[in-house]
Amino acid sequence: MGARGGGAQSKGGKQSTNPPRGMRDFLPDQVRLRRRIIDVIRSVYEAHGFEPIETPALETLSVLLGKYGDEGDQLLFKVLKRGDKLAKALAAPHVDPAAVADLGLRYDLTVPLARVVAAHRMPLPFKRYQIQPVWRADRPARGRYREFYQCDVDIVGAPAPLPEVELLSAACQALERLGFDDFTVQLNHRGLLFGLLEQAGVPAARRTDAVVVLDKMDKIGKDAVRAELIERGVEAADALLGMLSFDDEGNEVVLAELAGHCRGNEQAESGLAEIEQILDLSGEQTSRRLSVAPCLARGLSYYTGAIFEISSPQLGVSLAGGGRYDGLIGMFMGEQQPACGLSLGLERIVDIFEQRTETRTPAVDVLVTCWDRDGVGTSLRVAEQLRATGLKVDFYCEPVKMGRQLKYASRRGIPAAVILGPDEVASGRATVKDLSNFEQQQVDLDALAATVTAITANIGADATS
Amino acid sequence: MGARGGGAQSKGGKQSTNPPRGMRDFLPDQVRLRRRIIDVIRSVYEAHGFEPIETPALETLSVLLGKYGDEGDQLLFKVLKRGDKLAKALAAPHVDPAAVADLGLRYDLTVPLARVVAAHRMPLPFKRYQIQPVWRADRPARGRYREFYQCDVDIVGAPAPLPEVELLSAACQALERLGFDDFTVQLNHRGLLFGLLEQAGVPAARRTDAVVVLDKMDKIGKDAVRAELIERGVEAADALLGMLSFDDEGNEVVLAELAGHCRGNEQAESGLAEIEQILDLSGEQTSRRLSVAPCLARGLSYYTGAIFEISSPQLGVSLAGGGRYDGLIGMFMGEQQPACGLSLGLERIVDIFEQRTETRTPAVDVLVTCWDRDGVGTSLRVAEQLRATGLKVDFYCEPVKMGRQLKYASRRGIPAAVILGPDEVASGRATVKDLSNFEQQQVDLDALAATVTAITANIGADATS
Repeated sequence: MGARGGGAQSKGGKQSTNPPRGMRDFLPDQVRLRRRIIDVIRSVYEAHGFEPIETPALETLSVLLGKYGDEGDQLLFKVLKRGDKLAKALAAPHVDPAAVADLGLRYDLTVPLARVVAAHRMPLPFKRYQIQPVWRADRPARGRYREFYQCDVDIVGAPAPLPEVELLSAACQALERLGFDDFTVQLNHRGLLFGLLEQAGVPAARRTDAVVVLDKMDKIGKDAVRAELIERGVEAADALLGMLSFDDEGNEVVLAELAGHCRGNEQAESGLAEIEQILDLSGEQTSRRLSVAPCLARGLSYYTGAIFEISSPQLGVSLAGGGRYDGLIGMFMGEQQPACGLSLGLERIVDIFEQRTETRTPAVDVLVTCWDRDGVGTSLRVAEQLRATGLKVDFYCEPVKMGRQLKYASRRGIPAAVILGPDEVASGRATVKDLSNFEQQQVDLDALAATVTAITANIGADATS
Repeated sequence: MGARGGGAQSKGGKQSTNPPRGMRDFLPDQVRLRRRIIDVIRSVYEAHGFEPIETPALETLSVLLGKYGDEGDQLLFKVLKRGDKLAKALAAPHVDPAAVADLGLRYDLTVPLARVVAAHRMPLPFKRYQIQPVWRADRPARGRYREFYQCDVDIVGAPAPLPEVELLSAACQALERLGFDDFTVQLNHRGLLFGLLEQAGVPAARRTDAVVVLDKMDKIGKDAVRAELIERGVEAADALLGMLSFDDEGNEVVLAELAGHCRGNEQAESGLAEIEQILDLSGEQTSRRLSVAPCLARGLSYYTGAIFEISSPQLGVSLAGGGRYDGLIGMFMGEQQPACGLSLGLERIVDIFEQRTETRTPAVDVLVTCWDRDGVGTSLRVAEQLRATGLKVDFYCEPVKMGRQLKYASRRGIPAAVILGPDEVASGRATVKDLSNFEQQQVDLDALAATVTAITANIGADATS
């Protein structure tokens, strides 16, 4: 989970060394793990024909504001104006918080995509992926960070339902490649949801409120949802829950019942039809995971069609979410463009991987030690020669006691060490130490790479056996 | 160079779509190029035994302030406080600019390294690399951006000169692997420089000023440097330039002359001795590039020993810079730790690569087209089967006219397209189009992957020939 930021200032006046609250330093093993996971996701996305883009960490504040609802606006990290503009803003008799900042840190990867499609007039359809951090000034909690990575895939410029099918296929395959087996794709549709609210008699002014409450079904249960609906003035709570809540009846039963409730409501019927198409068109690998979830709502206000959430009930976490947002691109382009996307949450996946115990592959094959200043030239040459054979070679940069150098190698999990003392240098040989059992042998410099490779290969064999 | 941010707000009230001033969107070809370059650098760093870390984009402001000199402090992007703390800061009768921000965007990768070493008590010596963006509110110019990547290697916890030798070896090898041949490593030492200023009779109070001027030698030439030194009150300008300026005499001549000037000044002599050791210990690959450069100063105030700058005179750009900074880690740890580092400037390297004309490798092997809604299930299955063979397969997500789909494939540089019309589906066959010559053939579905692979291999052969 990374080295967590405590946020506390240190007491004694010494410079605080914590990362900011809710943000993390990643040490070498963590960086390697994160990169391994990202490489898998990326390769699956690329196998599906998605292309990478990257956008700046900062966006003009006006690009971000108003896209994520009021709560989202509150969670933006805003960047102070600079120079004269800042001085001017601060000199006002009553300083307007909106006047002192001009940039904001990226809040998600969807709004930047919409901006890029418009700015660069990307030829459509555009299938892009983007794997970058985002920042939210949220209250930090277990598994919730203020800087975290998203792995997004989106298809801009194509209507439902085929993009939905492709996106779900890519996401499921990425999770499978990462070794996840037990996960479910909850599938719903905003049109179905709002149509059924209408059918149940929930007045238009109460529908957004009702959706927010319904979205908590998985977390707080049916009774609590019912109570909160009534508390929020949704008098039709019982009618609504009668339509929407099911107990694992299976998609066929759910679809049949929903079809009955939708009858005569065009919005609901066409939403339901899209869900059915997505189920029909998905390949076996994906469709066996799809579960129609009429209460799923997804917080973000920009969704307009199908919405989905991938979660692992066994692990109790959400792994991905997304949906169709046909209005957002138009806010930047001046013309409507259909779009659908999905975001894999890297941090959850990393947290789960960190709980698995895995054999660590050594990051370095061999340490060339440093005997003394006289022989160091030879040691440096030997290190270079070993690197030229493709080995990863660390060189100890100071002639300290050999015990300390070997301890350093052990701590880093380096399997072998090469010692070049004056006797070795004189005879054109080197001592090689296998650090798994501390056995050592003298070998000719010509045979050094082969000897080290043999020791490293042994470690590799242990790790996979 | 990425799609540049113009910073201008659009006129007509439509949402501006530019990235912020001095920042860039990276489109697919650019992301792939950047990644390819980063992968080369990373693999060389890892071959030298360096380990990766990553740190948050944001740091507590107090961590950043005072580390980069006054000019650096001015260039920090600062993040506004949030909630009550912001309200309180803004409610003051005279709002203090220092009171409204609590975080800042990373300005370099060295200060975060120093913080991480202290925070996590990293066992020393610690050889780390870090490839991440940094942000500076500098005036944008050709090749100068407000968000740019640095690729840093550092060794913490080992004294000169072996870390210097290792770092220069790694950086030179990375540049060679990237295809650079014509580059030089300028080498100097802060001790030598300040010792010689003393020898030349420059008073202590004028030395920092003098160093700033000397550093411009390459840019403005000896006469302009002389004039500016005198303008800044360095009366010993002629004596100083007599000691420091050389015309390509070669390292041996320069070292011999400098030895004469250093005599009796301990600081200068020990600086010079370190330069000599670095020259002696560097392997042939590196040492042939090393050039003693007595005027090199490097702007950052934290350097304490050897300093270096790698540049390509032919291309007229600086590619990397670095040096020893034995004081910085101590500011966070409370105890001194020797440290030395080097930073490769990714953006310059990318800019140079973008000017080379290279054959583009297709990012996708084949487009499976979408004939109509009836046959789309088969098309989706075929796409999946092709992916299972390891091919990168795009699927067109909408049954538009075939001409438009094939045009899309051509634009993306996809070498082959698969068409599954009703006739093909009925006969269990597919039409494969080679998009380099628009020849097409009908093949059994079983033979599809092999046919596509053959077309793709042809393209690959063209690209390398």
